[in-house]
Amino acid sequence: MYPRSLQDLIENFRRLPGVGEKTAERYALAVSDMDEAAAKEFARSIETVKTQLTRCRICGNLSDQEECAICSNQERNHRLIFVVQSAKDVIAMEKTGEYNGVYHVLNGLISTSKGVMPEDLNLDTLLVRAKEADEVILATSTTMDGETTAMYLNKLLKEKCPSVLVTRIAHGLPAGGLLDYADEMTLAHALSDRRQIG
Amino acid sequence: MYPRSLQDLIENFRRLPGVGEKTAERYALAVSDMDEAAAKEFARSIETVKTQLTRCRICGNLSDQEECAICSNQERNHRLIFVVQSAKDVIAMEKTGEYNGVYHVLNGLISTSKGVMPEDLNLDTLLVRAKEADEVILATSTTMDGETTAMYLNKLLKEKCPSVLVTRIAHGLPAGGLLDYADEMTLAHALSDRRQIG
Repeated sequence: MYPRSLQDLIENFRRLPGVGEKTAERYALAVSDMDEAAAKEFARSIETVKTQLTRCRICGNLSDQEECAICSNQERNHRLIFVVQSAKDVIAMEKTGEYNGVYHVLNGLISTSKGVMPEDLNLDTLLVRAKEADEVILATSTTMDGETTAMYLNKLLKEKCPSVLVTRIAHGLPAGGLLDYADEMTLAHALSDRRQIG
Repeated sequence: MYPRSLQDLIENFRRLPGVGEKTAERYALAVSDMDEAAAKEFARSIETVKTQLTRCRICGNLSDQEECAICSNQERNHRLIFVVQSAKDVIAMEKTGEYNGVYHVLNGLISTSKGVMPEDLNLDTLLVRAKEADEVILATSTTMDGETTAMYLNKLLKEKCPSVLVTRIAHGLPAGGLLDYADEMTLAHALSDRRQIG
């Protein structure tokens, strides 16, 4: 019902995650209302991401260079590796300002339901890096697939790099979490992983 | 914290209505995961909308041609004009399949708070068209600005085109609307605009 050019744009917006018809319409109409320079810049930035953005050859993080800004920063502790599922997790962790080590981005999680196998993940370089590291922190999510992946990596690292310390990020109540709103798994973890105070 | 090219794309997505930082990140990462042809097509469709999409010279609706598909359709009743705020409203009405007249898109509403004056709206051609029409249906929203615009148009049309019948779309309870959930304005309208049954 929309003119062809607008309909095309609506369909392109619908490919984005979580975008339904109404939202895609709103976005496409917003683009049609943008001034021409802004729309051109938008189109250009989409093409640039595809042509310039690549994976860091060391950690697998998204990068415009062959090595990402974190891996090429010599002030960071390269003997401490924080293993995450995706580039988004790197940003989330960087925002805390609490971590000075490096990362390893798996670009996925082992998932029997989705048919993702260990060989689909960015693992080869992890083993090479772990041999030179003091500690590998497994920071995949505490979901089923995240736990499966962490268990698999723990076993693999213990086998191939026996000298490295393998740790898992803590499970427990989130900050501001109310006890009676927490699910049973979270509560059970919060109990079993309790720590002595002071 | 993201690579430059990705950060640029995130900022472009943030210009879309209702898109915050998290959502823009998700969209930009989705684009970086698209295959190259899909991303190129997305970029192209944004540029095409800006170069091809225009306003129908008769009704002001969005169109790829000088005259929109509705205005150039001779099977529609060109003596019945449905006046709406935006192109989205045309689509919403067309989806009902209940209307065979033509439209007039104001591309805005008179708004004292936003400083939108009658001269900012697509009104000149409406007066010309109304002179040739049997009925003009004022179908701006039942919001403050929509009502203000409808009142203004009613006065203007009565003055300049005294022979045309000017009507307003019905106010009342929406389909499936529960009486005790309706606001007072809606209920008052539903009462005052009640109709005899059968």
